[in-house]
Amino acid sequence: MNASAILNAREHGDMTAQVEPITASGADSRREASPHILVVDDDPMVRNTVMSMLRAQGFQPQGCSSGAEALQAIEAHTPDLIVLDYTMPGMDGIELCRLLRERRATRLIPIIMITGVLGTEMAVQALESGVTDFLNKPINLAELEARVHAHLRSKFLVDQLEDLENVILAMTKAVEAKDPYTEGHSGRVAELAVRVGEAMGLDEDALRSLRLGGLLHDIGKIAIPDRILQKPDELSEEERHIVSRHAAVSQDICESIHSLTTVADIIRHHHEKMDGSGYPDGLRGDQIALPTRILTTCDIFDSLTTRRPYREPMSAPQACRALDDMARDGQLDPAVTAKVRQAVSKNGDAGSHP
Amino acid sequence: MNASAILNAREHGDMTAQVEPITASGADSRREASPHILVVDDDPMVRNTVMSMLRAQGFQPQGCSSGAEALQAIEAHTPDLIVLDYTMPGMDGIELCRLLRERRATRLIPIIMITGVLGTEMAVQALESGVTDFLNKPINLAELEARVHAHLRSKFLVDQLEDLENVILAMTKAVEAKDPYTEGHSGRVAELAVRVGEAMGLDEDALRSLRLGGLLHDIGKIAIPDRILQKPDELSEEERHIVSRHAAVSQDICESIHSLTTVADIIRHHHEKMDGSGYPDGLRGDQIALPTRILTTCDIFDSLTTRRPYREPMSAPQACRALDDMARDGQLDPAVTAKVRQAVSKNGDAGSHP
Repeated sequence: MNASAILNAREHGDMTAQVEPITASGADSRREASPHILVVDDDPMVRNTVMSMLRAQGFQPQGCSSGAEALQAIEAHTPDLIVLDYTMPGMDGIELCRLLRERRATRLIPIIMITGVLGTEMAVQALESGVTDFLNKPINLAELEARVHAHLRSKFLVDQLEDLENVILAMTKAVEAKDPYTEGHSGRVAELAVRVGEAMGLDEDALRSLRLGGLLHDIGKIAIPDRILQKPDELSEEERHIVSRHAAVSQDICESIHSLTTVADIIRHHHEKMDGSGYPDGLRGDQIALPTRILTTCDIFDSLTTRRPYREPMSAPQACRALDDMARDGQLDPAVTAKVRQAVSKNGDAGSHP
Repeated sequence: MNASAILNAREHGDMTAQVEPITASGADSRREASPHILVVDDDPMVRNTVMSMLRAQGFQPQGCSSGAEALQAIEAHTPDLIVLDYTMPGMDGIELCRLLRERRATRLIPIIMITGVLGTEMAVQALESGVTDFLNKPINLAELEARVHAHLRSKFLVDQLEDLENVILAMTKAVEAKDPYTEGHSGRVAELAVRVGEAMGLDEDALRSLRLGGLLHDIGKIAIPDRILQKPDELSEEERHIVSRHAAVSQDICESIHSLTTVADIIRHHHEKMDGSGYPDGLRGDQIALPTRILTTCDIFDSLTTRRPYREPMSAPQACRALDDMARDGQLDPAVTAKVRQAVSKNGDAGSHP
């Protein structure tokens, strides 16, 4: 018997059959590149020792003998990790570190600082300037290996996190694309929420949660049959029952999230209102976390400015007025609605989506 | 005007309306706990110095004065990070480290070893025993802070990765649940593939990719309308066109994955055959990566043992014979089909799914 014959196109699939073959360059760009490490030290002895130790571990480090040279090298090719001497003539390690932390492209690169005996004042100054970790002279191979490995690992994990976020974005987009009236909704809400969050001074982790919460806030819909999601009329009793039963999916997802507590909070609580009139838990005021309040407001804004089978979309200014009304009624946080207004007018947002 | 009134139950939704309120204990278990750090040193001076430095940074460390005491403490409450002395009477740091690396529950806990001047032999021995990083005496506050932060951060990122994997699992389950004939397919394939991968000696990263690739291999289906996915008859020309057009979703996802190259490879290539007769790229033999070969085989096994509208499911032994036939025909890797047979018979797998 031939098992392949049993598997028809749908179940074992033609899904990918018509995908274009990957070009050589496409395949290359996806291959894992060796991490790029920069070694910055004016002392050729130390620099060469570190570089040959790194080479022995399979890396191909690049050496620089001054801060100025390092800045040029970084401009040309952003490194994955920098090993940096504390004492250098001209621009010293601390000064270079401060400069790199001010720039968006280099803000998060791990920097390991080479020091002699580490005095307290020097250490505090180094940490404040943005140094990630230290390596004492005389340099020990095992310590260098452990430290480089640890910090590259963090970067690798962050890259993987971004990948998984992109997978979730693609899945969300695909689900929404089946309904022209919701197409792009979660992506737009996530994007607007992050801009509002930035304007309100949220940190990097909170912004990531906001983005992910935006993508996932309507995730319960994934389990609702197309015929109900796309029905233009009022839902029947039975259909409403199916919809609410599938709330279990959101619940499932919230329960599987242990470290991203803000995301779980957003998924569960983005229908809470400041005056306690929302659901499912009737939270009020400060019981609702700021990221969740932001998401709620952005979600309503996007719904109002989107065309539905039974009504025309509002313009952005109209929607902002509606949000202000809800803030005055005590349902939304006025500090958030004000920032949403700024964000959408800055954006030159024309308002309605097709 | 009242904006809420405009938003009907479906669009701004009743999805979560009927979720049970979270109980107090449920809410607590989700709150972010302070990381649990264990400090193991027989010298009370060093131990107390490290612990008071950690307390100054807001941690609540637990101290142990011997390896045996540490083992008990770890048994009672798995720590997030261990600071461990090299020299201790009785069980020394190296010995404790080896023990912890042998156990599944403690295999991945970061261990920072306190040492004096680090000799080469000692360093090699420490790394081989599974030490993650070093901290030299006399202990410097800034170094301790930098190192603890770096290793806790890695652990936090791994936790987030697991969360996102669970989100993707929940999304996949929800999509599959709409079709009784595919319900649970991706989860079962992922689970079987990981067991086969373990038996074939794949490392931690490859196993994670295998799990994720298993969950995502059919992700293109997410964009296919229910009416086509669930149609019991042969697809029409137009329907086949819709199906293949949605291959773009798989493509999208592959292109958004930069660090998880194995996952992208699995999504794209799990219909390749060893003799080059597969698609989309007609790869053959070693051109197909081992994780992808494993996934392909597990995918076929699960399809064969699942009931479809138009045929009965095979039993596990029948399906294994079919896989062996395909290996003999040159389509599958016989080393993989042999391990699949072992994995499903070990499992006492009854074979068919409802």
